[in-house]
Amino acid sequence: MTLIPGPMNVEPQSLEALIAEFAGLPGIGQKTARRLAYHMLTRSKADVERFSNNMLNAAEKVHPCPKCHGFTDQEVCPICASRVGAKSICVVEKSSDIVPFERSGIYKGLYFVLGGVISPLDGIGPEHLHLPELVERIKTEGIEELVLALGSSPEADSTALMIDRMLAGVNVKRTRLARGIPMGSDLEFVDEVTMLRAFEGRVSL
Amino acid sequence: MTLIPGPMNVEPQSLEALIAEFAGLPGIGQKTARRLAYHMLTRSKADVERFSNNMLNAAEKVHPCPKCHGFTDQEVCPICASRVGAKSICVVEKSSDIVPFERSGIYKGLYFVLGGVISPLDGIGPEHLHLPELVERIKTEGIEELVLALGSSPEADSTALMIDRMLAGVNVKRTRLARGIPMGSDLEFVDEVTMLRAFEGRVSL
Repeated sequence: MTLIPGPMNVEPQSLEALIAEFAGLPGIGQKTARRLAYHMLTRSKADVERFSNNMLNAAEKVHPCPKCHGFTDQEVCPICASRVGAKSICVVEKSSDIVPFERSGIYKGLYFVLGGVISPLDGIGPEHLHLPELVERIKTEGIEELVLALGSSPEADSTALMIDRMLAGVNVKRTRLARGIPMGSDLEFVDEVTMLRAFEGRVSL
Repeated sequence: MTLIPGPMNVEPQSLEALIAEFAGLPGIGQKTARRLAYHMLTRSKADVERFSNNMLNAAEKVHPCPKCHGFTDQEVCPICASRVGAKSICVVEKSSDIVPFERSGIYKGLYFVLGGVISPLDGIGPEHLHLPELVERIKTEGIEELVLALGSSPEADSTALMIDRMLAGVNVKRTRLARGIPMGSDLEFVDEVTMLRAFEGRVSL
């Protein structure tokens, strides 16, 4: 019987490289990355090429809108282009936060993507966000209502405060999204902070 | 004030296409797919190109080993190539199942990737698996022990039974992995079937 070597790294280098790519995605751990990479190997060549091309294509064509910083593949995004003259602007942290607004159909105004929230621990100061452009846009476009939709972390709260300060003397109504019990939630499992805010914000029937 | 249109599909077509690609991966839902696609847009062009190339590269170079059907980028996989003469063969469902064996270092024999388990509901019959090749390999290589490592579903059990039948008259010891309480598991949360099997398989101290 020949010499049998010890445990070996059975994965080809090119497969390891693909696992590493998937593992570099946010929220994807080593196990999921391995599962996804092995899955790709079971796909047809045409399938893999299409995925690869769609990735390159999106990265090449999509860029931030120069007016609102939301992702677009046009010179100016369709919302900024078509809602010229709208008098409200909704401030969100990132481009994907626009999707649920548009899906609900409740809001017909403009958006502004801040590019994050102030977070000293992560090294994100006001200078990393598009704050001056927001103030400028509010002033020059005669915006009447600013809707803050920045989530409910302490960082979001201090960013909201910063925006409020920068708009001192500017005649614009400032609102933020309501906080409370989400739809379909079982009261038993609602966390303390949400309950606190839902109770504080209770309304008469 | 100009006419303000209704809710719109705010995502560029190329971004939608990338979201669809991610959503087509196993275990990745629509929300995660959107998150991953938006994340890719924040990456540098070089990063995206490297990811895309690693995907193409893996799909091009990696193929099933002609002997064991495990993924490899060589003519014959390093395990089949280096463990010639080993007298045991471990049968797994898919190529990635080899990884935990090699990582543990407990096993120094050959592997055989079946390509699935018999599952009539999913339209997978014995003819879709590499069963005849397995029997052939056991016979021609003088394998002494067949270790079944097919998981513990009813489908895996019936596949094991089928293999057992196909080997009628072949002088090979057949074993399967032990079933019981996994390491680090809290007994309180062990499911009934695992507990049943752990109790049935209890050993003297």
